[in-house]
Amino acid sequence: MTASDAPTTVLKLGGSVITDKDRPEALDGPALDRAADAVADALSAGEVSDLVLVHGGGSFGHYHASEHGVSKTEGSGEARAAVEIHGAMKTLDDFVLARLHDRDVPAVPVHPFSAAYRDEAAALSLMTEQVETMLGEGFVPVLHGDVVAHAGEGVTILSGDEAVTAVATGIDADRVGFCSTVPGVLDDDEAVIPEIESYDEVAPFLGESDATDVTGGMAGKVRTLLDLGAPATIFGPDALREFLAGEDPGTRIDGR
Amino acid sequence: MTASDAPTTVLKLGGSVITDKDRPEALDGPALDRAADAVADALSAGEVSDLVLVHGGGSFGHYHASEHGVSKTEGSGEARAAVEIHGAMKTLDDFVLARLHDRDVPAVPVHPFSAAYRDEAAALSLMTEQVETMLGEGFVPVLHGDVVAHAGEGVTILSGDEAVTAVATGIDADRVGFCSTVPGVLDDDEAVIPEIESYDEVAPFLGESDATDVTGGMAGKVRTLLDLGAPATIFGPDALREFLAGEDPGTRIDGR
Repeated sequence: MTASDAPTTVLKLGGSVITDKDRPEALDGPALDRAADAVADALSAGEVSDLVLVHGGGSFGHYHASEHGVSKTEGSGEARAAVEIHGAMKTLDDFVLARLHDRDVPAVPVHPFSAAYRDEAAALSLMTEQVETMLGEGFVPVLHGDVVAHAGEGVTILSGDEAVTAVATGIDADRVGFCSTVPGVLDDDEAVIPEIESYDEVAPFLGESDATDVTGGMAGKVRTLLDLGAPATIFGPDALREFLAGEDPGTRIDGR
Repeated sequence: MTASDAPTTVLKLGGSVITDKDRPEALDGPALDRAADAVADALSAGEVSDLVLVHGGGSFGHYHASEHGVSKTEGSGEARAAVEIHGAMKTLDDFVLARLHDRDVPAVPVHPFSAAYRDEAAALSLMTEQVETMLGEGFVPVLHGDVVAHAGEGVTILSGDEAVTAVATGIDADRVGFCSTVPGVLDDDEAVIPEIESYDEVAPFLGESDATDVTGGMAGKVRTLLDLGAPATIFGPDALREFLAGEDPGTRIDGR
């Protein structure tokens, strides 16, 4: 928990939302501007206070990761490959920080490659005491998808979603939001399912997700979020202001 | 401890050694090349294996830190100031990593701002499990002086020397070396003192250092290194190859 008693929010900005996935290392500047505007407005209106941001890799991380054949399970022992993927993510992070600073959001970076590792069983450990200290000082910590050292594998990819769940668990977040390219979890008629409390409710639409789903697909995401210990909301870019104002647009996932 | 049984070495490359202190953000390229050559040669000759590098801020970190009035004890709550100092250190770190990669040294960055914090009593905590995982995977982790979140102060400066002692303690290093602009601790005749086992031996030359010495002066450094739990050696750039070959050039400090 942070020093203050204000609720703590973790907000993920999907890599597909803030970058142009069709071109390597291409920012979607207008989309990032709109997200940064929403965050700045919600902070200055006092709608949120203790806020942690996480962004995905989008066309920055994914391009270099696939160039080097690195995934969440397939590692690389090449330092140059690790630093190239990490560097691309830091470049995207610099864009995100700059747009936030332009709007007086006190954003500071937390690079997971420096603060996390996986053990031989692939279990992730992420330090979060520095994040809590930053929140206590009024900063907005910004994490992102990255590479992480992985015992026996060199480095593997840490997805933005994994960073979200690790940091939300570590700081005992009260709310978690995923701003993605879809408006929520969809049923067979492409309608947004407003609330999910167990996987059985949505298995007909998402299929029988198992533990080997590491593609970041919706089935694995829903399973992970049901186990999170805090309510999570999946929504589209147009609903970001609503989420920051305390509402639950899109799909609310709460397995507690 | 790392996965292998090889001795673990932490080597600090002083900021004054690898940068031109007289100009802001100016690398001393030839000096960095010589240091990178020595590290690459020692690794390929098998003289060292589990190696952690730390570099100081030199004219990169110090320039921006003094611009913003930030020191080890005087903090800043300005996110932009924190990111500017941190960014300057990452720029220097990129130079260091690139020169090491040019020589096939498998260097990977560990940014302390992402992995450390100070509590309200100014006590530093630095995560080191990720450093141990990197070593176990054959990487050469590279840390540096940086800013860190500091409870009640915003951010304060973490000196390269502090990063050295924190990482050396965390990974239980066997040897610690400080490659600095001086050839060792000097007596009143400017002669190098070969060995120091207690502060009393050198108090006549260094003065009565007390706990408030935060300037990075030699007195404070000697006191810190006497408490380190591993032998530390202070030497000049010309003696770097000797240190990496297992010898003790300059001044050996061992308070055990």
